[in-house]
Amino acid sequence: MNESWTEFRRRIAEIEALTGAAGILEWDQQTYMPPGGAAHRGQQLATLSGLSHARLVDLELGRIIEAVREVGEAEGDPVKIAAARMMGRRHERARRVPERLVREQAEAASEGFQAWMKAREEGAFAPFLPALERLVRVTREIVACHAAAEEAEHPYDHLLEEFDPGSTTAELAPMFDRLAGELGALIEAIEGREGPAPLDVKVPRDRLAALNDRVARALGFRMEDGRIDEAQHPFTVGVGPHDVRLTTHLYEEDLLGTLGGTIHETGHGLYEQGIPDELAGTGLGAAAGLGLHESQSRFWENAIGRSLPFMRWLAPVIEEVTGQRIAPEALYGAANRVRPTLIRVMADEVTYNLHIIVRFKLETALVAGEIEAADLPGAWDELYERIVRVRPGDPVEGVLQDVHWSSGMFGYFPSYTIGNLYAAGFRKAMEADLPDLWEQVEAGRFEAILGWLRERVHRRGHMVDAPEIFRDAAGDRDPVADLVDTLWERQGRLYGVERG
Amino acid sequence: MNESWTEFRRRIAEIEALTGAAGILEWDQQTYMPPGGAAHRGQQLATLSGLSHARLVDLELGRIIEAVREVGEAEGDPVKIAAARMMGRRHERARRVPERLVREQAEAASEGFQAWMKAREEGAFAPFLPALERLVRVTREIVACHAAAEEAEHPYDHLLEEFDPGSTTAELAPMFDRLAGELGALIEAIEGREGPAPLDVKVPRDRLAALNDRVARALGFRMEDGRIDEAQHPFTVGVGPHDVRLTTHLYEEDLLGTLGGTIHETGHGLYEQGIPDELAGTGLGAAAGLGLHESQSRFWENAIGRSLPFMRWLAPVIEEVTGQRIAPEALYGAANRVRPTLIRVMADEVTYNLHIIVRFKLETALVAGEIEAADLPGAWDELYERIVRVRPGDPVEGVLQDVHWSSGMFGYFPSYTIGNLYAAGFRKAMEADLPDLWEQVEAGRFEAILGWLRERVHRRGHMVDAPEIFRDAAGDRDPVADLVDTLWERQGRLYGVERG
Repeated sequence: MNESWTEFRRRIAEIEALTGAAGILEWDQQTYMPPGGAAHRGQQLATLSGLSHARLVDLELGRIIEAVREVGEAEGDPVKIAAARMMGRRHERARRVPERLVREQAEAASEGFQAWMKAREEGAFAPFLPALERLVRVTREIVACHAAAEEAEHPYDHLLEEFDPGSTTAELAPMFDRLAGELGALIEAIEGREGPAPLDVKVPRDRLAALNDRVARALGFRMEDGRIDEAQHPFTVGVGPHDVRLTTHLYEEDLLGTLGGTIHETGHGLYEQGIPDELAGTGLGAAAGLGLHESQSRFWENAIGRSLPFMRWLAPVIEEVTGQRIAPEALYGAANRVRPTLIRVMADEVTYNLHIIVRFKLETALVAGEIEAADLPGAWDELYERIVRVRPGDPVEGVLQDVHWSSGMFGYFPSYTIGNLYAAGFRKAMEADLPDLWEQVEAGRFEAILGWLRERVHRRGHMVDAPEIFRDAAGDRDPVADLVDTLWERQGRLYGVERG
Repeated sequence: MNESWTEFRRRIAEIEALTGAAGILEWDQQTYMPPGGAAHRGQQLATLSGLSHARLVDLELGRIIEAVREVGEAEGDPVKIAAARMMGRRHERARRVPERLVREQAEAASEGFQAWMKAREEGAFAPFLPALERLVRVTREIVACHAAAEEAEHPYDHLLEEFDPGSTTAELAPMFDRLAGELGALIEAIEGREGPAPLDVKVPRDRLAALNDRVARALGFRMEDGRIDEAQHPFTVGVGPHDVRLTTHLYEEDLLGTLGGTIHETGHGLYEQGIPDELAGTGLGAAAGLGLHESQSRFWENAIGRSLPFMRWLAPVIEEVTGQRIAPEALYGAANRVRPTLIRVMADEVTYNLHIIVRFKLETALVAGEIEAADLPGAWDELYERIVRVRPGDPVEGVLQDVHWSSGMFGYFPSYTIGNLYAAGFRKAMEADLPDLWEQVEAGRFEAILGWLRERVHRRGHMVDAPEIFRDAAGDRDPVADLVDTLWERQGRLYGVERG
């Protein structure tokens, strides 16, 4: 009986070791690898990903998963049952897409990235179009493979399943529409008002690094099980709870942007460090989807990291580390300025979600065949004007701004806003559970907050999907209302407007 | 005809990608990995090494190698012939050792390392003995596997083959004996004489790092294809000519030790960066043995890096980078002090080889069954007294000082002295080829030197074994005489003695 479980764990541990090794190579690629290393790195990563894919689609693994399912049900063992369900789903999904299509996807992604770079250099969409058309066609073919095996209300659901298992287009679309309307009302209310001033300080790089280290540790990030390095585009890699690598970018002219980025990545890192050891080798020792992962980074970055109590704790820390004396209210105001702009990654907390909603509308329409790749520039500009209230001057600031589509990553963008919604729900639920929450933040005591997240989110790994984890943690809260409430409360007050 | 070659290259490239990935993980483990990462790293490395071993022993690879050999001979293609010979040898050697023994070796090594650490802590040999006995037994069993398939004059040759293919015990033993005698005479001559003074300077870590960078670049190390980081025990990892990682240790109180270590690793790194791109995926794109690898590090460290012309170039560089003004003669004297001591890794250029000769005598006797593990402490102390002219006070300074045996690494030590011998031969051959060699060194022009090594050593990869590369580069020089000559010339003069 236990043989299948032992063999299952051996095989999953091997897959996890391969993806863990690839994770370190990817981290290295963006932190320390010398430029010439790219020549070798591509082959190394392709080899590792080919080997783990081959192990995942192995028919024998399918039989072992089935045996684990039977044993788990006979024993009533929740870990075995969940492991069989989770790995069974990954195994089946991987098997549905033929080798030929996996290869074409990889080729199209590589071609797409080159074409996207070229298009950005030339400031024109046309050089990207043929590659994007191919990527859209391949994506639709992959969706068709899943659709042939499994029903879904919307073809886009088959892509969501990859990044946010358990989320559906039918649930997200009306939430996103409501959110767009509500955020539009807030933006309209504060439009033309002066609001808080930006900061005007310069902090040397070594002081920024010291501050990042200090803040990440204070929030509970274990440096014996992780580290912080610099990267051009910050990201976090966790190859297991005891090796979690945060990266950050040091902007000497942007203290709050630097710190906000670090707090964001620390949120991701705390999630990775909170995955229970005993789930290693089961396939369940991982985040329950990218949206939930993003909820952890956004919770710390926005709910905690942009709050006035946090700034009251932070201001003396900044002074101690950098010698700069900045009033907490000045930090708080500067961190919460709102202004519709064109670039998603530079957006403030309020307008950020509007950028995501535009991409969600375009992606769902593309996958459903309602629009084609050639329609994207026009549709993009029109939606930006209507939803974000700004119109791109050129495609580099518009349809070409993000890298995702150039590698065929459709279905990923919603996770950013799913994360913001979950984070808002967690915040309200936590406020109910921890009545002195904000006193603790002001005192720089973050253990109870982290403890709440550990207990309600992290320790569950991927035993169940994110929507279930959210419901168990936050009850039947309405996260759209929660998010809009907190933004009105914070930004409305800073801009001197009240909700109508 | 070409199908077998294409398939051969695909398979070898996969093995190289796996070992390259493992190389980066090992580098990371000793530079940036957080302590907790060890929990995951063991499994990652074991998985990668298991996968590359399985690929190497695959019977189908054996058939493909045979087909490549036939095609190569029919076409008269030297690369195919060499590739088939080299990979055929590795494939056969790997196949001879049964899976059971490979696993037992890994277990014994892991147990051995723990026991060695414990023994060092307790300052006693006894806690290490049972594990060492097992390691010796396993090593003898592995040797027996090879002996059953292939004749050799001495059983130790089967171990040499792993690290220094082409070297034999019958050739090394008399060379090492001659060398021990000659070095003994030099040491005897300078015994009791005062000799040059050590340096007494302190350099801050960031200045040491800047100096390392400056010197490595000056020697020709390409930073776009490599980097330098800090590690407890310096080493170099090359995962291909475009990604070579040097490591070094910054000793604030030991300027010359720090620089010497960096020049040593730079020598290794220059070799790795000099392997031709076109040998990738053939199994020939690698160093032709550890002794030849060591010859490159020792050549730069000793022949160049301890020379007076080098110090004349280095002194103003040190002054520029650190602000310390030290006369070239003072640097030269301090870098060439001779004093018999107990610890190999701290030894000077003259006595260093005596440490290796002791280990070589013990290892060959162990493998031949002439002594047993329990005899090692006594035999060690006796040989140290006779050959190195010092007697260890306790086993930590004696038989327990090196890590190698604790992981069953028998056959590795000779490569250090093989490297010194080759380096001395290369130096003399180069002096004949480049009449203004030392003027170039004094002027900080190292291109012609590196060019000589590139042409005679690096560009050959592992097309042939090291002894053939040495003969082609240095003719029929006697490297023992070359090494002893240069030491008498340098240290004899510094200590004011003449060769009898």
